Amino acid sequence: MNEHASGPAAPVTVIGLGSMGQAVAAAFLKGGHPTTIWNRTAAKGRDLVARGAVLAHSPADAVRAGGLVVVCVLDREAAQGILGPVEAELAGRSLTVLTSLSPEEAEEMAQWAAERNISFLGGAIMATPDLIGDPEAASILYAGSHTVLREYRPALELLGATTYLGDSAARASLLETGLLASMYAMFAGFYHGTALVGTDGVTAEEFTALAVPWLKAMTTFLPGQAEIIDAGDYTTDQQSLEFNKGGLDHIIRISEARGIATDVMRPMAALVDRQVERGHGADSVARLVEGIRYPEA
Amino acid sequence: MNEHASGPAAPVTVIGLGSMGQAVAAAFLKGGHPTTIWNRTAAKGRDLVARGAVLAHSPADAVRAGGLVVVCVLDREAAQGILGPVEAELAGRSLTVLTSLSPEEAEEMAQWAAERNISFLGGAIMATPDLIGDPEAASILYAGSHTVLREYRPALELLGATTYLGDSAARASLLETGLLASMYAMFAGFYHGTALVGTDGVTAEEFTALAVPWLKAMTTFLPGQAEIIDAGDYTTDQQSLEFNKGGLDHIIRISEARGIATDVMRPMAALVDRQVERGHGADSVARLVEGIRYPEA
Ligand SMILES: NC(=O)c1ccc[n+]([C@@H]2O[C@H](COP(=O)([O-])OP(=O)(O)OC[C@H]3O[C@@H](n4cnc5c(N)ncnc54)[C@H](OP(=O)(O)O)[C@@H]3O)[C@@H](O)[C@H]2O)c1
Ligand SMILES: NC(=O)c1ccc[n+]([C@@H]2O[C@H](COP(=O)([O-])OP(=O)(O)OC[C@H]3O[C@@H](n4cnc5c(N)ncnc54)[C@H](OP(=O)(O)O)[C@@H]3O)[C@@H](O)[C@H]2O)c1
Repeated sequence: MNEHASGPAAPVTVIGLGSMGQAVAAAFLKGGHPTTIWNRTAAKGRDLVARGAVLAHSPADAVRAGGLVVVCVLDREAAQGILGPVEAELAGRSLTVLTSLSPEEAEEMAQWAAERNISFLGGAIMATPDLIGDPEAASILYAGSHTVLREYRPALELLGATTYLGDSAARASLLETGLLASMYAMFAGFYHGTALVGTDGVTAEEFTALAVPWLKAMTTFLPGQAEIIDAGDYTTDQQSLEFNKGGLDHIIRISEARGIATDVMRPMAALVDRQVERGHGADSVARLVEGIRYPEA
Repeated sequence: MNEHASGPAAPVTVIGLGSMGQAVAAAFLKGGHPTTIWNRTAAKGRDLVARGAVLAHSPADAVRAGGLVVVCVLDREAAQGILGPVEAELAGRSLTVLTSLSPEEAEEMAQWAAERNISFLGGAIMATPDLIGDPEAASILYAGSHTVLREYRPALELLGATTYLGDSAARASLLETGLLASMYAMFAGFYHGTALVGTDGVTAEEFTALAVPWLKAMTTFLPGQAEIIDAGDYTTDQQSLEFNKGGLDHIIRISEARGIATDVMRPMAALVDRQVERGHGADSVARLVEGIRYPEA
C-alpha cells in the first residue's frame, strides 16, 4: 500500500476475469486500490466482489469507474471487441493491455489508441497467475506510454517486477516472444537430456536434480556472450565453434547410438557446421546468432 | 585440509597437465595433498612444481608415488596410451579418469581396469578449469567404484561438488552428455531470442538482462515436469500440448515475419504437432520426452 507515499491508491478497472485477470484484480484489491471489474461471464467476478471489488454492469461503466483501465482477455479480437464500442469513454484515459499480443497487434492497438486520445501502455506478463504479486517470480514488461507507467507505477508494481522497454508499444510483445523462445528451447533440451539418460534407467527426477543447478550455472555465460554479440567481434581464445562442434557431434553420436531422436540437437549442430564451413571455426560460439539473423549467412 | 578428520592428506598423482589437469593438481596442492604430476610435455608442470608438486620422470614413477591416480588427458586414446604400458604398476591401486569419455568408452575402460585389479572411478567435470575448487560453481560426477570415492572423497571434494551416480562407470559420461545437451539447447534458444529482439534494435545485453533471471525462473518448472515423466501419466489441467502449440506457432510466425531463421524452434514445434496429431493435445507438454525416446511414437 502506498497511500502515504503518493496519496490514496488510484482507482483501477480490470476487464477480463479469466485466471490471469482474476489474479491481477486480486493483487490490486490486496494493495488497497478501489477496483472495478467486468467480465463477459459475470459470475467469474463473484470472489473478487466478496473481497471488495465493484462489478460493473457494462464495459462502459467499468471504464468510467477507473483511472487506469487494465484489459486481460484472451486475445486481440476479444480485446478489440470490448474496447471498440467504448472508445468514447476511453478518450483521455489510460489503458494497459496485458493480453498477449504479437508485436504487430500491439503496434496496431497503440495506433488505434493514439488516434482516439487514449494513453496506451502495452504489457506482457512473464508469469503464471499464481505468481502474480511476487516480484521475485513475476516479471511484467511494459512498452508504450511512459506517462501511464509513471502515474500508475504503484498499482502496476503490485503485480510483479516492472520493466519499461521504451515507447514503442510492440517491444513488450517482442521481448516476451524472445523470452518464450528461449524457454521452449531450454525445455526441449531438458527433454532431450531426460530421454538420453533414461536409456540407462536414470529417472527424470535424478536428471533434474543435476540439470536445474547446471542450467542456472550455465546462464552465467550469457552476459559474456551478449557482450561479444553486441561488439560484433567474434574472435576469441575460448569456447570456439570448432571446440563446440566436437561437443555437439559427441552428443548426437551418443544419442543416435541409444536410439533416441536427435531432432532437438540438430539445428544447433547445423548452425555450428555452417559457420565452421565458412571458415569461422576459431570464432566464438556466440557467432551462431549471425546464422539465425541472416538465414543465408 | 582434512588432516585432523582423517589422518594426513593422501598422496595423489595427476597425469595430464593441460588446462584442466593443472587446475586439478593445483586444487590438490592447495588442499595439502602430496601431489605427484606427469605430463607428456614436462614444461607444463613448472608452476605446479614451484607450488610443491613432485614431477615424475615417467608415468610408471607417477603411478607408484600416488595412492589415487587421476588422469586428465585429452581423450580415450591418450589415456589408454599412457595407462596401457603401466598396468602392472596400477594393479591394486585406485584410478580416476576425468578425461571426457563416451559412456561406451568409460564402460570399456572400467572393464579393462577390472580385469587388471585396478579400482576404477569414472568422472565427468561439469566446469571449466577456472571454476575448479569452487563447490558452488564446479560439479563433478562420478560413477564406478564406490570404494575409491569413499577413500579419496576428501581429496576429490577439493575439486568441486561431488556427486556419485552408482557403480555403472558409464553413468558419469551419460549424465554429462545429457547435461551438455540441455545446455546447448538453452544456448540455441538464447541465440534465437537475441536474433529476434535484435530485429527491433534491442541489444543482446538488454535481452540478456531479462533472459538470465527468466531462464533461471523457468528451471523451477522442471522438477514438476520430471515428476510427470517418471509417473508416466501425462494427463494435466495446465500447460497442455495444445496450449503450448499456440505459443510455439506464435513464436515461429513472428520470427518468420521478421526474416530470421526458425530452425532452432522447429523441432520442439514438430514434436508438439506430432503429439497433438496423435490425440494427446490435452496432455502435459512433458509428454514430448516420449517423442524423443521413441522417434516413431
Ligand atoms: N494464464 C497464464 O499463465 C498467462 C500468462 C501470461 C499471459 N497470459 C495472457 O493473459 C491473457 C488472459 O489469459 P487467461 O489465462 O486469463 O485466459 P482465460 O483464463 O482463458 O480467460 C480468458 C478471458 O478472456 C475472456 N474472453 C475470451 N474471449 C472473449 C470474447 N470474445 N469477448 C469477451 N471476453 C472474452 C474470457 O471471458 P469469459 O470468462 O466470459 O469466457 C476470460 O475473461 C491471455 O492473453 C494470455 O495469453 C496468461
Ligand atoms: N577445459 C575444460 O573446460 C574442460 C571441461 C570439462 C572437461 N574437460 C576434459 O578434460 C580433459 C582435458 O582437457 P584440457 O582442457 O586440459 O585439454 P588441453 O588443455 O588441451 O590438454 C590436453 C592434455 O592431454 C595431453 N595429451 C593429448 N594427447 C596426448 C597423447 N597422445 N599422449 C599423452 N598426452 C596427451 C596433453 O599433453 P601435452 O601437454 O603434452 O600436449 C595435455 O596434458 C578433456 O578430456 C576435456 O574434455 C575439459
